[in-house]
Amino acid sequence: MMISIKRALLSVSDKTGLIPLANTLRQYGCELISTGGTGKTLQENGIAYTDIQQVTGNPEAFGGRMKTISFAIESALLFDREKDNAEAEHLNITPIDLVVCNLYPFKKVLDAGADEATLIENIDIGGPTMVRAGAKNFKYVAVVTDVADYDALIAELTTNQGALSYATRKRLMRKAFNHTADYDAMIATAMDKLDGELSLRLAFTGGKELRYGENSHQKAFYYRDKEADASSLYDMKILHGKELSFNNILDINGAIESVRRLSKTGCAVIKHTNPCGLAEGDDQRQVFEAAWAGDPVSAYGGILAFNRPLERRAAEFLMLDAEDRSQRKFVEVIIAPQIPADTLAYLQQHKNLRVIEYNTAFPPCRKDVRYVNGLLLAQDADLELLSKMEAVTEIKPDIDAIRPLVEFGLKAISNIKSNSIVLVREKNGLFQMLGMGAGQPNRLNSTKLALERSRETLTAEYNGDSAGLEAYIAAEIGKAIMISDAFFPFPDNVEFAAEHGVKTITQPGGSMRDNLSFDACNRLGVAMILTGLRHFKH
Amino acid sequence: MMISIKRALLSVSDKTGLIPLANTLRQYGCELISTGGTGKTLQENGIAYTDIQQVTGNPEAFGGRMKTISFAIESALLFDREKDNAEAEHLNITPIDLVVCNLYPFKKVLDAGADEATLIENIDIGGPTMVRAGAKNFKYVAVVTDVADYDALIAELTTNQGALSYATRKRLMRKAFNHTADYDAMIATAMDKLDGELSLRLAFTGGKELRYGENSHQKAFYYRDKEADASSLYDMKILHGKELSFNNILDINGAIESVRRLSKTGCAVIKHTNPCGLAEGDDQRQVFEAAWAGDPVSAYGGILAFNRPLERRAAEFLMLDAEDRSQRKFVEVIIAPQIPADTLAYLQQHKNLRVIEYNTAFPPCRKDVRYVNGLLLAQDADLELLSKMEAVTEIKPDIDAIRPLVEFGLKAISNIKSNSIVLVREKNGLFQMLGMGAGQPNRLNSTKLALERSRETLTAEYNGDSAGLEAYIAAEIGKAIMISDAFFPFPDNVEFAAEHGVKTITQPGGSMRDNLSFDACNRLGVAMILTGLRHFKH
Repeated sequence: MMISIKRALLSVSDKTGLIPLANTLRQYGCELISTGGTGKTLQENGIAYTDIQQVTGNPEAFGGRMKTISFAIESALLFDREKDNAEAEHLNITPIDLVVCNLYPFKKVLDAGADEATLIENIDIGGPTMVRAGAKNFKYVAVVTDVADYDALIAELTTNQGALSYATRKRLMRKAFNHTADYDAMIATAMDKLDGELSLRLAFTGGKELRYGENSHQKAFYYRDKEADASSLYDMKILHGKELSFNNILDINGAIESVRRLSKTGCAVIKHTNPCGLAEGDDQRQVFEAAWAGDPVSAYGGILAFNRPLERRAAEFLMLDAEDRSQRKFVEVIIAPQIPADTLAYLQQHKNLRVIEYNTAFPPCRKDVRYVNGLLLAQDADLELLSKMEAVTEIKPDIDAIRPLVEFGLKAISNIKSNSIVLVREKNGLFQMLGMGAGQPNRLNSTKLALERSRETLTAEYNGDSAGLEAYIAAEIGKAIMISDAFFPFPDNVEFAAEHGVKTITQPGGSMRDNLSFDACNRLGVAMILTGLRHFKH
Repeated sequence: MMISIKRALLSVSDKTGLIPLANTLRQYGCELISTGGTGKTLQENGIAYTDIQQVTGNPEAFGGRMKTISFAIESALLFDREKDNAEAEHLNITPIDLVVCNLYPFKKVLDAGADEATLIENIDIGGPTMVRAGAKNFKYVAVVTDVADYDALIAELTTNQGALSYATRKRLMRKAFNHTADYDAMIATAMDKLDGELSLRLAFTGGKELRYGENSHQKAFYYRDKEADASSLYDMKILHGKELSFNNILDINGAIESVRRLSKTGCAVIKHTNPCGLAEGDDQRQVFEAAWAGDPVSAYGGILAFNRPLERRAAEFLMLDAEDRSQRKFVEVIIAPQIPADTLAYLQQHKNLRVIEYNTAFPPCRKDVRYVNGLLLAQDADLELLSKMEAVTEIKPDIDAIRPLVEFGLKAISNIKSNSIVLVREKNGLFQMLGMGAGQPNRLNSTKLALERSRETLTAEYNGDSAGLEAYIAAEIGKAIMISDAFFPFPDNVEFAAEHGVKTITQPGGSMRDNLSFDACNRLGVAMILTGLRHFKH
């Protein structure tokens, strides 16, 4: 049902956009009621209005604390236009059909570090009362709380000759209650803090139901953090393929995180949130091949992420049109900042492949939240890589020369579940993770897994005769760097790595027994560099 | 500053506890102002009060939508008792010092599945206005929104001869704004849902800063979910040792989850959230030893959880007073439902050991929330174990006989990061995880890790001469059950397991190529049982 806006109450602390809206309302014969400051702006622009004191019958009082709250105003907003008409007439109440109100700028003074008295003075009482009263009666009343809605409002008023639709009023009602919920959330949190209590309120919108959660017996939904940037993970664009699953979203996040900070064109292969393949370089096809080579078995059914528009030439490495079906590489999801039309045409050959674009402009989330059994852990995201590069062994590598490779390795390891070890190699400007060991309760197991996987990668890439294989592996492992996400409690990792040809190791340092590892390095001809920052990820 | 409560406004939808509070107020000469229903209850109990209409000068109107909102009431709550006294007197406003108000029961009608009109009628407008006005002016006004606060209020009024302290008013103010924030959060979410939009609001309290997050360069806090049970993880009681770290809390959660569902006395050893040792049986000392034996190397620096009060006899397995320091077992945290005094005295020998009691009564959280880059994934927790036990091979084990061991294995695996494989064994009523493989992108690696670890466990427990070792391992592995958290895409896992002596395997089933694994089992003399439910955990 359309409602003609015959009488509107305007009371705004932010005057932006007020005049065009007021003019439109006046154009359709709407009476405007206004409070002090808003009225002054209307007057300066030659727009006629009724002072609210004429409606309330009360003065503005107590330094402005009392302006709108009154039997007259809230009755005009709240009464049922069908059932209560006679009573309204008897009580001399004329309906108000529209409230335009923005609340005292509590957030602004809070962010500016205001003192307690200023904060309290900026808690709006009359505004939320009007907004909530109008919203409750949205069947007859429209409530506008956001300057960003004025343009659409003007357009609709113009189209409907001064009236607003039920759908608009309902949408505005939802926005109004969300606004007062946000407002009181902010006040409650700030007041708690004043009194020495830490509280936290998080709000999420745009919820969508997923087919199921991590497993099919778990119901699941996903939402956007209201505070998240508009071009966030939530906004990724599915160009082709089935809807995403719970695990796809987790994996995609790991995938984007793994390529986000790479400097050159990069590719990550993700399985169960961990990168099992990662590379960066100058040529996207070559980079893709190098990432895939990091663990071609695990890559099966995995997620691929790129940090540059995906060239068709690179995508063709999947061999989706190979006659021999066993040569076709099956992945669940491909995500890139852009999928050009020719690449998309190629990828669409695979019906079940999800092809997704994401916005690389979305900033890394600074918030990391873990929920465990009614307890919330909130921490800053792990965005730093290292705090130093300090050679602690007799052999002292050229720090500047190896820094890019170490940083590449740290970008990999900070996305891999602890305990984690990676081996990374640079070859003609191509950075490649040769192998990784993830998620082991015992660090030595991770080292073993990373070296075992690296040997397999090198064996697969080796072209010579079998007699030369071991020498080739030794040479390549000798050029690689082994990166540990945390310190070594004992020298066993160093000993195992040295035995398998590793010549350079980085770790954050910080064990009481660091010296045992340094000594083992010196004894075994290994260089060790401390990077200063641990990268546990559980 | 104390405030004498001379005039109180009582307007409650829940009349519980109203009379004793009103009597106390009257006893100190306080005038009571009341709305219709509340007034009627007072009258029935012979308590004198002023009808609110005498104060507002307005009738109750529009089917009760207008009762309290008025210039008189909100002025009486809001005016500054120091600056605005003269103005108040001039306007004939007498201060109100206390508001007792509980809001329309929106949650109750929502939970009862009310229709849109009923929901909307239960959005309180006047209540939040009074509550917020009084709270803003807490320097002079007390606001009570929770029946649970009446007793303390009566006690304080009695002690202070009808007055309330500043600290109380401030605490009540925080509670009031949290109450209106919760109330509007609930309304906003419900109104969104009516209009087909899913939104979610979470609120957390009792925040505490941690020394740092997962790593030392990450700032961190933890909070309690407002909706969580009062005896939740948040409420665990530290009896001894340093404050908890971020990773301790994550690990403790994994530890409690790992023992929570065990039927007999149980013990879990946790490293990086995964149980690397788990056992249950009749004797706690024996159970502890069996859990520890599951991975004694990784157990170093881990977390121990028990599901029964910790007996000193069991704790002594740590050998904290061994003269030979290398025999002392170092763990970071021990957690049990109860730590008797003699056990605590023993554990306190270790200065840095954290000793914690938790409440086993706290129910499993049904909510599991993951936050990734501004996107929230919310799912039901993984609380079910299996949906069937179906033998799909020629060899058909006695399902009833092995069910307890399979369930034990599923309790283990549902807490281990995917891909996960465990080997579990029953020996004279003692259930033990022999070994596990966790967090591998390639399932075969997890199978290899689990078998390798199991062989080490069996080797360590073997007492005979070396010639008999392999036969012993083969016999024990043959009695064990291998449990997979998800289906096998290829028969390689079965082949590897069979080659290493495994005779019984369970997996959820569901691969398009399940038959390949069934065939391999039949070929290799292995029994396979499908359990129906996957237990991915990332």
